[in-house]
Amino acid sequence: MVTVAVDANGADRGPAEVARGAALVEGVRVILFGPRAEMGEGAPHIEVVDAPVSIAKDPDPARAVRRTPDASIVQAVQAVADGRADALVSGGSTGAALAASLFTFKRARGVHRPTLAVVVPVPKAPFLLLDAGANVEVRPEHLVQFAHMGAAFMEAVMGIERPRVALLSNGEEPGKGPEVVVAAHAELRDHPGDLNFVGNVEGFAIGTGAADVIVADGFAGNVTLKVMEGASAALLGAVRDAAMSSTRAKLGGLLLKPALRGLRDELDPEEAGGAVLLGLRKLGVVPHGSFGARGFARAIEVAARGVEHDVTGRTYERLAAAGALRKVSEAAASLPDQ
Amino acid sequence: MVTVAVDANGADRGPAEVARGAALVEGVRVILFGPRAEMGEGAPHIEVVDAPVSIAKDPDPARAVRRTPDASIVQAVQAVADGRADALVSGGSTGAALAASLFTFKRARGVHRPTLAVVVPVPKAPFLLLDAGANVEVRPEHLVQFAHMGAAFMEAVMGIERPRVALLSNGEEPGKGPEVVVAAHAELRDHPGDLNFVGNVEGFAIGTGAADVIVADGFAGNVTLKVMEGASAALLGAVRDAAMSSTRAKLGGLLLKPALRGLRDELDPEEAGGAVLLGLRKLGVVPHGSFGARGFARAIEVAARGVEHDVTGRTYERLAAAGALRKVSEAAASLPDQ
Repeated sequence: MVTVAVDANGADRGPAEVARGAALVEGVRVILFGPRAEMGEGAPHIEVVDAPVSIAKDPDPARAVRRTPDASIVQAVQAVADGRADALVSGGSTGAALAASLFTFKRARGVHRPTLAVVVPVPKAPFLLLDAGANVEVRPEHLVQFAHMGAAFMEAVMGIERPRVALLSNGEEPGKGPEVVVAAHAELRDHPGDLNFVGNVEGFAIGTGAADVIVADGFAGNVTLKVMEGASAALLGAVRDAAMSSTRAKLGGLLLKPALRGLRDELDPEEAGGAVLLGLRKLGVVPHGSFGARGFARAIEVAARGVEHDVTGRTYERLAAAGALRKVSEAAASLPDQ
Repeated sequence: MVTVAVDANGADRGPAEVARGAALVEGVRVILFGPRAEMGEGAPHIEVVDAPVSIAKDPDPARAVRRTPDASIVQAVQAVADGRADALVSGGSTGAALAASLFTFKRARGVHRPTLAVVVPVPKAPFLLLDAGANVEVRPEHLVQFAHMGAAFMEAVMGIERPRVALLSNGEEPGKGPEVVVAAHAELRDHPGDLNFVGNVEGFAIGTGAADVIVADGFAGNVTLKVMEGASAALLGAVRDAAMSSTRAKLGGLLLKPALRGLRDELDPEEAGGAVLLGLRKLGVVPHGSFGARGFARAIEVAARGVEHDVTGRTYERLAAAGALRKVSEAAASLPDQ
């Protein structure tokens, strides 16, 4: 059975909510790191490690990670590195989770840069967006690797066969975009390996189902995610206002409400479990701090499925097949992982 | 009275639709360039120049502009450069309008790069986004100038006093974002001149009214615009589907419909008249090819208002006050425009 190490500190609704999420999960062992006083003892599949020290709010996560060995996130990451657990879930800040994972897990074989990937909930057309903000400046070979890592994740965890992978650009033509995008396009087109590369997509592609994986630098990716969230909130707010603007509209809104509830569930970011940290020797999932118990449960399930279906191994195979591994000596590349 | 030169070729619904738009405008003289046979003679405030040759669909607009002096867009731009008209409106392709304007108008005094700006229709919180795609790679001094140009436009044309200007980034902290954004932030903070610089905004800010002008490189700006459009379309489509999912929901949708019509008008991109080309010696407005008569009329009005309220002059003043003019010798900088 897969074991997932969970840092319960830093979640908006407190460690108890994370513990409730862990209790919901079936078929996975969980080690919970956080204040035992707030989390209780949990269920038989849960081991609680009392780790009350939190660095989730530290403005300099990298420094805090190095200086605070007893912090819950540092202990959780260490448990994965030691082999006591197979993957990480962090309910705290993305920055601290990233810093601790990078520091302790190390990069996977042949990977230039780890990346944050997010399954974006769009009605009928969910897709994986990466990088979501871990790398605001990239080189073409980084984008190429993100493409393979994203495909491996969608195959292994979401069960999508031959996921269609696209580059985000400001036009569909291969020559459109900043130099780094143009170069990555050429490389993915000429050396796709096992990758189902479908070319560039524009921002319009959000919601059309044109691709299963959309690859961008961490700046454009972060902007895309947040613009989607901002635009959706503004629009739903305006629909709500319209539905309050007259007696007739109010009645209409009431009648429509049950049908819209399904849509709300479909758009629920908790369903995807949060952002996934790919490209390290171990898998990490970073749920949003605002999540409730169900979101944390989903995060633990996603992490477990990623281990069961060997996302890391599949990523390596894809990168090798496409000749996209970081250039190291043959001997070093063939060494075992740890 | 202000005169606007209008290229009627290239619009999706044909030159006649552009001519109908010109006929709707009051208080502005219009010179219409396009096939007279399709446009007729129009109203007393309209002069029709028979210019049937169109390069709106040419895949290489820059080359087409140089090789086709009788093309309608080239003639329209020339009329502005000669002083027969004061500003340009192009119903054809953005690429051809950009190429012809750059080629003939030249950059305004002290401006590094012209930029495309778009008033984004968000419920209750419209804002100006620039650059919308003219410059996919930028230096910090370009972003700084975009900030001043955007402020000058919002003041002069939209009548907003001390518009709040923000940089788009992946975090609100001054150190967040690619190097070019961090450097532009420092420069705008330390030397704002007359600018009301409010710092960084994230993609979430779309729809919150946090800024009147949002500045980005042309890649992130283009992605933002199109993601907004894609996300909005997906969401409205899903609401429509929900409203068809049961008899009860259908009735609710019918009752809500009149209230949503107001929202649709508020979101209508025709209202803003299209993208505005800033930073050249003359002002240009590029309505979307899909616009109807009302959208073209709005474009002509926006161009006229920009001339009446001297966007170009105000831009220069702002850039000068902030020390953000392109470095040229004092003597050259003090030469008159033409």
